[in-house]
Amino acid sequence: MDPEHLPVINNYLDANEPPSSEARLSRMHFHDNQRKVDYVLAYHYRKRGAHLGHGSPGHSLAVISNGETGKERHGGGPGDVELGPLDALEEERREQRDEFEHNLMAAGLELEKDLESKSQGSVFVRIHAPWQVLAREAEFLKIKVPTKKMYEIKAGGSIAKKFSAILQTLSSPLQPRVPEHSNNRMKNLSYPFSREKMYLYNIQEKDTFFDNATRSRIVHEILKRTACSRANNTMGINSLIANNIYEAAYPLHDGEYDSPGDDMNDRKLLYQEWARYGVFYKFQPIDLIRKYFGEKIGLYFAWLGLYTSFLIPSSVIGVIVFLYGCATIEEDIPSKEMCDHQNAFTMCPLCDKSCDYWNLSSACGTARASHLFDNPATVFFSIFMALWATMFLENWKRLQMRLGYFWDLTGIEEEEEHSRPEYETKVREKLLKESGKSAVQKLEANSPEDDEDDEDKLTWKDRFPGYLMNFASILFMIALTFSIVFGVIVYRITTAAALSLNKATRSNVRVTVTATAVIINLVVILILDEIYGAVAKWLTKIEVPKTEQTFEERLILKAFLLKFVNAYSPIFYVAFFKGRFVGRPGSYVYVFDGYRMEECAPGGCLMELCIQLSIIMLGKQLIQNNIFEIGVPKLKKLFRKLKDETEPGESDPDHSKRPEQWDLDHSLEPYTGLTPEYMEMIIQFGFVTLFVASFPLAPVFALLNNVIEVRLDAKKFVTELRRPDAVRTKDIGIWFDILSGIGKFSVIINAFVIAVTSDFIPRLVYQYSYSHNGTLHGFVNHTLSFFNVSQLKEGTQPENSQFDQEVQFCRFKDYREPPWAPNPYEFSKQYWSVLSARLAFVIIFQNLVMFLSVLVDWMIPDIPTDISDQIKKEKSLLVDFFLKEEHEKVKLADEPTQRSQGGGDRSRRSRAASSAPSGRSQPGSIASSGSQHTNV
Amino acid sequence: MDPEHLPVINNYLDANEPPSSEARLSRMHFHDNQRKVDYVLAYHYRKRGAHLGHGSPGHSLAVISNGETGKERHGGGPGDVELGPLDALEEERREQRDEFEHNLMAAGLELEKDLESKSQGSVFVRIHAPWQVLAREAEFLKIKVPTKKMYEIKAGGSIAKKFSAILQTLSSPLQPRVPEHSNNRMKNLSYPFSREKMYLYNIQEKDTFFDNATRSRIVHEILKRTACSRANNTMGINSLIANNIYEAAYPLHDGEYDSPGDDMNDRKLLYQEWARYGVFYKFQPIDLIRKYFGEKIGLYFAWLGLYTSFLIPSSVIGVIVFLYGCATIEEDIPSKEMCDHQNAFTMCPLCDKSCDYWNLSSACGTARASHLFDNPATVFFSIFMALWATMFLENWKRLQMRLGYFWDLTGIEEEEEHSRPEYETKVREKLLKESGKSAVQKLEANSPEDDEDDEDKLTWKDRFPGYLMNFASILFMIALTFSIVFGVIVYRITTAAALSLNKATRSNVRVTVTATAVIINLVVILILDEIYGAVAKWLTKIEVPKTEQTFEERLILKAFLLKFVNAYSPIFYVAFFKGRFVGRPGSYVYVFDGYRMEECAPGGCLMELCIQLSIIMLGKQLIQNNIFEIGVPKLKKLFRKLKDETEPGESDPDHSKRPEQWDLDHSLEPYTGLTPEYMEMIIQFGFVTLFVASFPLAPVFALLNNVIEVRLDAKKFVTELRRPDAVRTKDIGIWFDILSGIGKFSVIINAFVIAVTSDFIPRLVYQYSYSHNGTLHGFVNHTLSFFNVSQLKEGTQPENSQFDQEVQFCRFKDYREPPWAPNPYEFSKQYWSVLSARLAFVIIFQNLVMFLSVLVDWMIPDIPTDISDQIKKEKSLLVDFFLKEEHEKVKLADEPTQRSQGGGDRSRRSRAASSAPSGRSQPGSIASSGSQHTNV
Repeated sequence: MDPEHLPVINNYLDANEPPSSEARLSRMHFHDNQRKVDYVLAYHYRKRGAHLGHGSPGHSLAVISNGETGKERHGGGPGDVELGPLDALEEERREQRDEFEHNLMAAGLELEKDLESKSQGSVFVRIHAPWQVLAREAEFLKIKVPTKKMYEIKAGGSIAKKFSAILQTLSSPLQPRVPEHSNNRMKNLSYPFSREKMYLYNIQEKDTFFDNATRSRIVHEILKRTACSRANNTMGINSLIANNIYEAAYPLHDGEYDSPGDDMNDRKLLYQEWARYGVFYKFQPIDLIRKYFGEKIGLYFAWLGLYTSFLIPSSVIGVIVFLYGCATIEEDIPSKEMCDHQNAFTMCPLCDKSCDYWNLSSACGTARASHLFDNPATVFFSIFMALWATMFLENWKRLQMRLGYFWDLTGIEEEEEHSRPEYETKVREKLLKESGKSAVQKLEANSPEDDEDDEDKLTWKDRFPGYLMNFASILFMIALTFSIVFGVIVYRITTAAALSLNKATRSNVRVTVTATAVIINLVVILILDEIYGAVAKWLTKIEVPKTEQTFEERLILKAFLLKFVNAYSPIFYVAFFKGRFVGRPGSYVYVFDGYRMEECAPGGCLMELCIQLSIIMLGKQLIQNNIFEIGVPKLKKLFRKLKDETEPGESDPDHSKRPEQWDLDHSLEPYTGLTPEYMEMIIQFGFVTLFVASFPLAPVFALLNNVIEVRLDAKKFVTELRRPDAVRTKDIGIWFDILSGIGKFSVIINAFVIAVTSDFIPRLVYQYSYSHNGTLHGFVNHTLSFFNVSQLKEGTQPENSQFDQEVQFCRFKDYREPPWAPNPYEFSKQYWSVLSARLAFVIIFQNLVMFLSVLVDWMIPDIPTDISDQIKKEKSLLVDFFLKEEHEKVKLADEPTQRSQGGGDRSRRSRAASSAPSGRSQPGSIASSGSQHTNV
Repeated sequence: MDPEHLPVINNYLDANEPPSSEARLSRMHFHDNQRKVDYVLAYHYRKRGAHLGHGSPGHSLAVISNGETGKERHGGGPGDVELGPLDALEEERREQRDEFEHNLMAAGLELEKDLESKSQGSVFVRIHAPWQVLAREAEFLKIKVPTKKMYEIKAGGSIAKKFSAILQTLSSPLQPRVPEHSNNRMKNLSYPFSREKMYLYNIQEKDTFFDNATRSRIVHEILKRTACSRANNTMGINSLIANNIYEAAYPLHDGEYDSPGDDMNDRKLLYQEWARYGVFYKFQPIDLIRKYFGEKIGLYFAWLGLYTSFLIPSSVIGVIVFLYGCATIEEDIPSKEMCDHQNAFTMCPLCDKSCDYWNLSSACGTARASHLFDNPATVFFSIFMALWATMFLENWKRLQMRLGYFWDLTGIEEEEEHSRPEYETKVREKLLKESGKSAVQKLEANSPEDDEDDEDKLTWKDRFPGYLMNFASILFMIALTFSIVFGVIVYRITTAAALSLNKATRSNVRVTVTATAVIINLVVILILDEIYGAVAKWLTKIEVPKTEQTFEERLILKAFLLKFVNAYSPIFYVAFFKGRFVGRPGSYVYVFDGYRMEECAPGGCLMELCIQLSIIMLGKQLIQNNIFEIGVPKLKKLFRKLKDETEPGESDPDHSKRPEQWDLDHSLEPYTGLTPEYMEMIIQFGFVTLFVASFPLAPVFALLNNVIEVRLDAKKFVTELRRPDAVRTKDIGIWFDILSGIGKFSVIINAFVIAVTSDFIPRLVYQYSYSHNGTLHGFVNHTLSFFNVSQLKEGTQPENSQFDQEVQFCRFKDYREPPWAPNPYEFSKQYWSVLSARLAFVIIFQNLVMFLSVLVDWMIPDIPTDISDQIKKEKSLLVDFFLKEEHEKVKLADEPTQRSQGGGDRSRRSRAASSAPSGRSQPGSIASSGSQHTNV
């Protein structure tokens, strides 16, 4: 009997075997100390008639359950106690579990679980994937594995070689001390695993040929596609978890991260070299992260690392730009003119009645502060940042390709995704409604792959209510955000009006109002951020997307839209709308019964924009990092601990024992995806690029935040979360599109900030068209229009003016015809020429930067040259390698054939035998080739 | 002896076998009437001592040459005649050919060639690829072939199904009558060919399992990589052709396209259903084109077809827009005002001295004509066309995916490209220079795949002169184009001035000058177009790109840049620069000693732009189509015929016989790539999108041209060219980037045409800001400024004015302050407000259209839903199919194993035998497993 073709369907461990918990080498193996636990399913059980009796505590012998016996046990269980409704549910669940576990064993997996000895408690089903299952699945999944053939990776030319050597020496203290980093000059040629080509691979030990992440991925793949006909939902572990049949499913961590002693495991290594604040200055051990957590999480950290390192140059230049502003503050003619008391521009009152005329020199401070952010260097900086964003994205594409090459991701195809359980439920409901039971039976009779059929698919008509709901809700949410922004504006207007009535508070009205309003904005943003996250999830659930991937993409898009609008709408208001609807003295614009629209400070709105940006950005980062990322998980942990302690503690006897790895992992938080981490960074990326013209320090703050963020996330993944399933992916998906969208959007936003919000263009126009001597002397006077105070409307004059001189004309900031012109207070020619210049600047800036971005994009090849060379080389090496192997095979087959007839076959067979050694058929394994058909 | 592992290395056809030319079934087989000719190498030979003697004519027995004997024959050839220098070269070539042919046979190909019986003549080496070579190469090239498994292709929902059925019925007269179209409801599951999985495929007859295009592709692949150590260039047929060792290499056409009778072949079918003007209304048989010419050419025609069909809606709307202009011409107030003699605007003279004042109403005609193209509908149309371009590109992506799916291109990888012979020569020269002979020997000792080594690669330093030359030449060419445009401007200015001196010609100066200038432009464009094509090729050769693909890409980029600048620079001048540097009355801008810069016609430059565009576009299409695409090939053919006839005609005796297919094909033009075809279409695409705001009829003309162009190209490919090598490719490569670049560029160009060139914005501004009653009444007056004629410079006044009234003020088209203002002739407020409006329009238009394009791009998924469903389904079917096959294999292996030990192997062997039947080992085949190592 050829053992290779016999599936090991189930597995008995002799119940008489001693527990041998002392002799066990690792807490990550079955009790036989041989078979590694690759995956754990956890569920909570309650025995029938829960309070009848307890199993003898301490008697927790490991017993391997098996489908057949399990069923039998429940068929004629221990006495016919009446079933309460809860018990019936429990019984149903137990049956589903039994069927599912039976199917898993039929698929070749080996299971171990403890006896349900107590009246209720948690049971962990440990799953081990034996070699032939791994081999079969690796072939289906086309997992690339290293072959025997090694080759050297060439660094570019000799100069490049030297340069990289120097760089390596210099950066060596920054490198994490992780074994992989020692020999990165050689690479194994990889080839998708194939059982027919076993001779290609360097299989020394079958237990360790696939690393732990790959093993658990394979098991997860089987879990996802194993059917359970008893459960309503036909497919996979996800449905079962969704229906509470199982509580959790997770692969095991590689051990403890803080165990004392020298026994090193990958998790501990990651903790020591990556997930501590103490190593914040080091590079990340990306290869190890990928090996441990899989490609998807590896790519996230690689992306985060690249982003953080790209923030360094932009921070440096941002600081230089800021310092340039500081250094030139004394030479800035407009602010000097504003501060000059001799100029004495008498300004029109800022509010009706209670406000007095005022002297422009009293706004000297804000004018000087404005110059810090409103100088020619910021124009340069915003062009730089637009190109920086393009460079970053290009370099990310390159890094992604490079990682893809080293991680053997080139040429992997999209994995087929199973439908989400919610989708299947929805389809079933639809069928039930449409054609009664018969259709459901038809559906159940269908093989699971056939669900692309026309009738069991949600059509546009079925989805319409969901879409409508989504559309309406998103519109409502955006309207809500806008109305909150408007509310804050109203707050500002009214409070300012109220405060300015009181003489005592009048002096610092502006500061008080601005500060409180920004803090209100910040709090609202933080609260709505959380709400919108939940709303986006809820809306996506309503939409019932078919696969997990579309679910994630739609969720991300919705959440991004809502959070983006939430975070940026107050900033957009300040940048582009504030102070533009004020009207002019004599015909102000009023809202709500006599409140004038708010104006910007005399130094321009840019200063206010800057304050708004810095407070929202810093506040968001600090509070979200500290409270939501550190505080909330701690609280949750505390809460769970308390809950565990209050529950009837049957685990007491176990406490004396060293807890098993699955117990430890079960107590960790489940992994819920990378979306929040990415989202936070993307919103930050927006702060760094979108309004960088008004706040050149944004990159510095982002950099400081990210240095912490990397380690914070790392710590979370290593110490606080259950090990995530290793997911194979080539890229960061929709995030890249969002990033490049923000990059493109930032160009036009920055163009408008410079052209419209800042005073850059008016100054330029004044200097080159109106100035008498080519300097900015007289600029302030030029920007102020005259108003004849006698034309102020009745009742809006300052009530008891204490201004020290007779006022005939007051000044206001606008380009309008003077009172003595034929058409007084109309926009003047200057207004139109400045406007033309502003708009021309927008066009030139936008198109220039877009052109430069395209140029950068085109000049930097997406695939690094050395990598594309290596890929080509790898291909040709692979062909060579194959030809050689084939040639040898032919020789082997030929030579004996000429002597004896069956020789070739014998040699072929012997090779097959050597690649499938013994130790595969477990004791007590039963062959059942008949049932194999349905498993896989 | 297992025949499967014995390569058939060479092949003798018994020379005594009768020629049997009568009995031959087809002229596409070897003389044994069994082996199909898959490829032909042609060379011209001249015997040593060429005029010594002729071989007996008529005695053209087919003899199969074989490497070994060939060498021997030449080693001790027919007498030691002294070798002239030409003879030595000839001898060298012969030896190289012999070695190459030997190597081909060693690679498993089978060759047949005629005796070199005459003193000189053409010899055709016919190549046949036997089954085992095809199988081996198909496996290496991962050629997807249909498996036994068929599945149904689902059309969307039931409504979609009905709709498509109706559509099919309606369009059935438009469908070409080609067999493939009958059953497109089923598709074979495809899988890369693998000799280990022969049982998967439905191999009925090995001779026809791979179609002719695939067979020739495989042979071409071998030809490309077979080394010839004797030739300096190590690799492949391309080097040999480049060095004139062979004259040509081509696969055979499937037969004659115009043969009488019913014997149908694919070529004849293509001719009848595709390559005739008579079927211009039909869809193209894309699948058949792909089957016959390969994917690359198939994609070109699919692209051309899609483009042409996309031109239909845009033509319709373009015509409607034009008709709208015609219909509203009577209601257009500005042109009515201009034509109104009562208004009597006295305009300033158009030239100094000799020109008189004139009445605006005399320009009535052009004003009315302008309205045809300058009306609000064109704004709508240019937005439409920008979105149309996006839609077209999106739909092309989808069609490409769809074709990729049906043509089994999903998941194919880039094929490795060999270095170009020129590159290798250059590398060799470099090595020679650097380190003498030794390095060359080292290089030659290297295996060809190792040429990625650092020292035998052209570095940036080696390439610098080439790049510099390129850069300088391109700059020079662009400068040349600009100076020609400038020359034409000078021609226009001077001729206009000269003509206006003469009273007789004065009346139609403008028409004469414009017409002649445009024709000069057209002729220059046509001539430079050809020159630039050649220059681009030459420049790319100087650059020495490494692979054929980079060569093509760089050539395309350069040619596109040059041709684009050439075709569009006069148009850009008219659109954006003409009439903008005129100055104003009293201070005109003069060039060259007193010539005033040219102005636009009173109706605006748009009319002139339109004339320029239509003449260049139509002229280019008509002349290039007729002369270059139809005339020149005919001339070439004639020339070659003449040349053939003047040469010593040894082919006379053959004339009596029916000519062989390789003779026929040899007399056709060689295929030189798709670049000119694409380039022509891309430039046309530019005409259709870039200036569509000024010429809404462009799509109509493009459509008319393309309907002819499709059949013209088809005819060329079917009847006039040698069969091209079938090239597998997934997309149209760099052309897509160029297209989308033009699409993006067109947005900003159209924005500027509408804003700056047309009068759309000034009208809008007048209507909403200055008009008293909200209509355009008074617009003409508003656009004309006043000039006090007494301020005309001395000597520029009209000499003998015959104007019928006393002129104090003349008017000119500009927004300037009147003479009585405090700052006369400065730009007025209107000027700035109109400018602001123009620029604001550009910003809004550009960003709106870009946003809409992104939206369209995002809304239309790149992969059609049905195709992505099918691909998913195909994947899962494939897994099922495999599992089933594996299961059966296991069963087969298991059952006998339980009875007898060797049974499983026997069944396996028997399957192998059945999949590799006899007929493979040719008579006289010799096993030589030792030499096999070097073949593949």
